[in-house]
Amino acid sequence: MVVKSQIKLIKSLHQKKYRIKNGMFVVEGIKTVKELLASDFKVFKIYANDEDSLLSLPDYTEFVSQNELRQMSNLKNASGVLGVFYIPAEKPIDFNDWVLLLDSIQDPGNLGTIIRLCDWFGIRHLVCSSNTVDCFNPKVLQATMGSITRVNVSYTDLSEFLKDAKLPVYGTFMNGTPLRQVDMPEKGILVMGNEANGISRVIENRCDKRIAIPQFVAKTAESLNVATATAILLHEIRR
Amino acid sequence: MVVKSQIKLIKSLHQKKYRIKNGMFVVEGIKTVKELLASDFKVFKIYANDEDSLLSLPDYTEFVSQNELRQMSNLKNASGVLGVFYIPAEKPIDFNDWVLLLDSIQDPGNLGTIIRLCDWFGIRHLVCSSNTVDCFNPKVLQATMGSITRVNVSYTDLSEFLKDAKLPVYGTFMNGTPLRQVDMPEKGILVMGNEANGISRVIENRCDKRIAIPQFVAKTAESLNVATATAILLHEIRR
Repeated sequence: MVVKSQIKLIKSLHQKKYRIKNGMFVVEGIKTVKELLASDFKVFKIYANDEDSLLSLPDYTEFVSQNELRQMSNLKNASGVLGVFYIPAEKPIDFNDWVLLLDSIQDPGNLGTIIRLCDWFGIRHLVCSSNTVDCFNPKVLQATMGSITRVNVSYTDLSEFLKDAKLPVYGTFMNGTPLRQVDMPEKGILVMGNEANGISRVIENRCDKRIAIPQFVAKTAESLNVATATAILLHEIRR
Repeated sequence: MVVKSQIKLIKSLHQKKYRIKNGMFVVEGIKTVKELLASDFKVFKIYANDEDSLLSLPDYTEFVSQNELRQMSNLKNASGVLGVFYIPAEKPIDFNDWVLLLDSIQDPGNLGTIIRLCDWFGIRHLVCSSNTVDCFNPKVLQATMGSITRVNVSYTDLSEFLKDAKLPVYGTFMNGTPLRQVDMPEKGILVMGNEANGISRVIENRCDKRIAIPQFVAKTAESLNVATATAILLHEIRR
């Protein structure tokens, strides 16, 4: 049986302020829990409520009732396995490669998909503005499909960050230079902006180059979704 | 006041079988409603519950109470404007350009994003397997951001469709030829597969070429999300 205070703690971790306060986060689903167990992340607790999952999980996994799991879960249908891990310390950024910056990304699905893209394209450092959605938000974690273990995500004031940047800064804008006219260097900083408003003015002023993904036909679709635009840009960077 | 039978009809349209039965679908939000009004789609009814929206909508728009709108809406927070339109007849496919085929796409957000991508990259014909999520599903429509008015979506048996195909058929597979080693012709058929299982065996047998988006580093992320993979492929096709 899980004590009430523990259930209360775990439920609180669905909110950012309690994740920060406790330095922990929750993941659900056996696949993601196992990916995190196999990574550098430090585990706090694992809970499971089916015998099959228990067999493939560490000895210290606690068996819980479906009702207890439901109380701890953030999902409509709790998945049977829930893990609590410690939020790792942010790692120093390696400027010997491309670094991706996100300016005010709000949608958890978009951030999760972008983390998964970074993993695919070998981008190890993702730097987010302080107001970007938290990468340990349950919906973000779900969308990363385990990629959170291989991409270092940090949060900071992007304007301050860019002030000292030694690499060229590429910002994406609707009216930027079409991608095919731009030679992408071996390393640099790529900035993607907010879903509705794009890159904020203060960050725009710190961009060295303005680039755009060209539309094939006359202006029809208003814009690309930020995650799909990021896919195309990372693909171009790695060509 | 909206009569009960009308509210019942509109609510029923949130389900595919009633959309098919009645040949109608629902969209919400003034932006999307206006995009549809400005398109070839035929309107059945428009409802609004705020005076500001009424001013910019056609004369025949019906003013409704917030409660009535809430009853008709599929959203947690109804957006103030709701439109009911007729499902258009499927248009004949133009094989003088690339055609995109979707094999069993299940996630409404993915289909919506792919429709938006087709619009951006000027792909006018999207052919879906019969078991692909319905393009008039409210969540799909929301994710298309109005692009549904500029992309012809049809549903059919893909295997039968491909039997008579005169264009080369490119299927995306994890173990396909890396994209950068493939010359994409001016026109062809591109097939994207299901989120979890990829392209089904019967469709795989009808593909002339197997292509893949190369990963930058050693195998890390398991796969790309199907919408982000489609973004990269359409970008390559239009280079």
